[in-house]
Amino acid sequence: MEEAIDMTATIVTIGDELLIGQIVNTNASWIGEQLTLRGVDVIRTVTVGDSPSMIKDELGRALENGRIAILTGGLGPTHDDVTKHAVAEFFGDRLTRRQDVLDAVEARFASRGIRVLDVNRDQALAPESFKAVVNRAGTAPALLRRTKTPKGEGLVALLPGVPHEMKHFMEEAVLPEIETLGEHGAIAHRTLLTAGLGESLVHERLAGIDELLGDDVSLAYLPNIHGVRVRATVRAATAEEAERRRDEVTVWIRERLGVLVYGEGSDTLEGALGRMLRERNYTIAVAESCTGGLVAHRITNVAGASDYMVGGIVSYGNSVKSSLLGVDATVLAEHGAVSEQVARCMAEGVRSALGSDTALSTTGIMGPGGGTPDKPVGTVWVGLALPDRTEARLLRLGTSRLRNKERAAAQTMNELRILLGEGA
Amino acid sequence: MEEAIDMTATIVTIGDELLIGQIVNTNASWIGEQLTLRGVDVIRTVTVGDSPSMIKDELGRALENGRIAILTGGLGPTHDDVTKHAVAEFFGDRLTRRQDVLDAVEARFASRGIRVLDVNRDQALAPESFKAVVNRAGTAPALLRRTKTPKGEGLVALLPGVPHEMKHFMEEAVLPEIETLGEHGAIAHRTLLTAGLGESLVHERLAGIDELLGDDVSLAYLPNIHGVRVRATVRAATAEEAERRRDEVTVWIRERLGVLVYGEGSDTLEGALGRMLRERNYTIAVAESCTGGLVAHRITNVAGASDYMVGGIVSYGNSVKSSLLGVDATVLAEHGAVSEQVARCMAEGVRSALGSDTALSTTGIMGPGGGTPDKPVGTVWVGLALPDRTEARLLRLGTSRLRNKERAAAQTMNELRILLGEGA
Repeated sequence: MEEAIDMTATIVTIGDELLIGQIVNTNASWIGEQLTLRGVDVIRTVTVGDSPSMIKDELGRALENGRIAILTGGLGPTHDDVTKHAVAEFFGDRLTRRQDVLDAVEARFASRGIRVLDVNRDQALAPESFKAVVNRAGTAPALLRRTKTPKGEGLVALLPGVPHEMKHFMEEAVLPEIETLGEHGAIAHRTLLTAGLGESLVHERLAGIDELLGDDVSLAYLPNIHGVRVRATVRAATAEEAERRRDEVTVWIRERLGVLVYGEGSDTLEGALGRMLRERNYTIAVAESCTGGLVAHRITNVAGASDYMVGGIVSYGNSVKSSLLGVDATVLAEHGAVSEQVARCMAEGVRSALGSDTALSTTGIMGPGGGTPDKPVGTVWVGLALPDRTEARLLRLGTSRLRNKERAAAQTMNELRILLGEGA
Repeated sequence: MEEAIDMTATIVTIGDELLIGQIVNTNASWIGEQLTLRGVDVIRTVTVGDSPSMIKDELGRALENGRIAILTGGLGPTHDDVTKHAVAEFFGDRLTRRQDVLDAVEARFASRGIRVLDVNRDQALAPESFKAVVNRAGTAPALLRRTKTPKGEGLVALLPGVPHEMKHFMEEAVLPEIETLGEHGAIAHRTLLTAGLGESLVHERLAGIDELLGDDVSLAYLPNIHGVRVRATVRAATAEEAERRRDEVTVWIRERLGVLVYGEGSDTLEGALGRMLRERNYTIAVAESCTGGLVAHRITNVAGASDYMVGGIVSYGNSVKSSLLGVDATVLAEHGAVSEQVARCMAEGVRSALGSDTALSTTGIMGPGGGTPDKPVGTVWVGLALPDRTEARLLRLGTSRLRNKERAAAQTMNELRILLGEGA
């Protein structure tokens, strides 16, 4: 296991546009994920501008603290692309011209009928100690070299910043090269998605899990607006061993959390709800007041949702609640639009108007205005109509209108999912 | 202007989930953009895991090389949240309990009827040399302190990693504190929001603007799914001078782009449409097939939308198009659900069913399945019903279902906005 800890990497992304926030750094997260999946421990990701001294600095730190340094960006043909020159200086390399790269660049321009400029030809210059890999999707080659590091044989890779070029080189050149750096164990991980409890309560439900954890098994809690994601990471000598222990831990967690777990990885609440409806051969319709269409939007984000989604009614004005959903004017007058009674009538009304098996409804005060001492901003009633009965739930949300809509939509779908999961 | 160069910052984002690529680092880009807009030079962004030694290391480097260090993440209540402890060690601070933070945490839990755990109470512990700012949207406070750096008086800020909490603290506490760090020239900026033309066409319309630009006046084009944002940034000795020149540039741009500009800064398309409806005293209703509720959702994101938004019908199944929207079955059979005729009938149908003055409709093929040679994935017809006439538009979108929904919703709202702006 010693070696597993040593297979550490730093990702250096280069470009002023990243520092000033003009673009989001999706390259760093993608590379981080790919390395992690192959058992490499990403210890640091750093972004610097197109500055030779800072690039050399970061490369130096990366090779002091780990065995792999992946640099992206700054390999283009313009004057602010300095990565290649900085790295050549770092290793004391001259730049040498690579005929295969030059041929590929010229062929690429010829096939498009564009004149090749000197700056384009300079794409074929590479630091002499680096291998240049021809770019089939662009002009800048990938540049790779092995190097000694305090932790063992290492690798430096320079890749273009254009995401699809970078990904291609990672898959074709960098990841295979990393495989050859030596046995470095395996990592297995799994993320369970939960909805219905806050972070500290999920934590409490998992009391006792510490006995399963240790240096090579770790757990992270990642809350977002839809719930709490619980990620288990296991490190072991072989992939089989890592996966076996990962499964052990996640089975344990699933037993404790039960129906709170709605999926894994990139699953969604609407996807989980859709699967349940499909299994039961149920259709669904929605009647939305306070969520204003968001529940219908999320349900129809799922490809193939038309198999079970009949449609919805956004009853923003009270007149629509009466005319299309058949909510009795006296119920509205007596209990108010934000009430358990109206939520139930809306769910039953849309189920009947659209002829679905199940239905959801939302009615609430999203803010910033409209609150009363009795029904403050954040008060939401949701209705859950099943084929044979109707239930309602009271949600107490916050004061941010947009977050309230998101939370109400997620919790409403989750409540129906739980009801169906409990056998409804 | 010399001092402007000294106002340098490092952003340190903390969390294993960032390193392994489970989430994309949108915090770093957002903070980078905000600092840049205020004339702060972001020299480095670094991400490390929940490791006390690495956090201390990065904080040390940040304060050696710049005056501002902003750390986000790792302030939650669970055992893997170590930022506060690492920073306390760095400054040799004890942790002290802050009564106002504790009161806020307890009030927050009480209002939701949730039990407060010890880990939640520990959110009130802060390194003694830091000011703690109560979190109104969560439990972890922001922690700020001034500090001496080789380049002058500096600032260290620790913020929660949850994006909306981080943003709130940046706007309310950190950016105002940075303003007080010393005179560093003035920057004025303005972002004009456009919809309806691609980046290169916007660029073409602004031909000749180079004469207004220079070292101290720059223009950036920032495309996103809703359109192209055009940001002008002006640097000058005084705020008055910077604002005067900024206004000059943006007036020039507005003249060239006309109705394509729907707002500034954080304005939204739905907000711009809402203002137009309000000015004309018009109400609106929507009939959505392919956008599945997203247009209604966006219109109702605007506070006070109930003044003009009557409601909507999501006619996902064709039966709903006939029963609730009154689309003739023979029109559906003859032209297909995705057709100009059906889009017009849907818009007129929902205007009539809900009694509104105007209406929007969408019907299309969002993918991944459902395309035909005649009507490939991405084909969308939208209907625009005004009080006295109805128009229709054909959109040709891409192959990604979620992006198609977003683009169709935005373009539909934009078409109605332009029609109204032209005097309809």
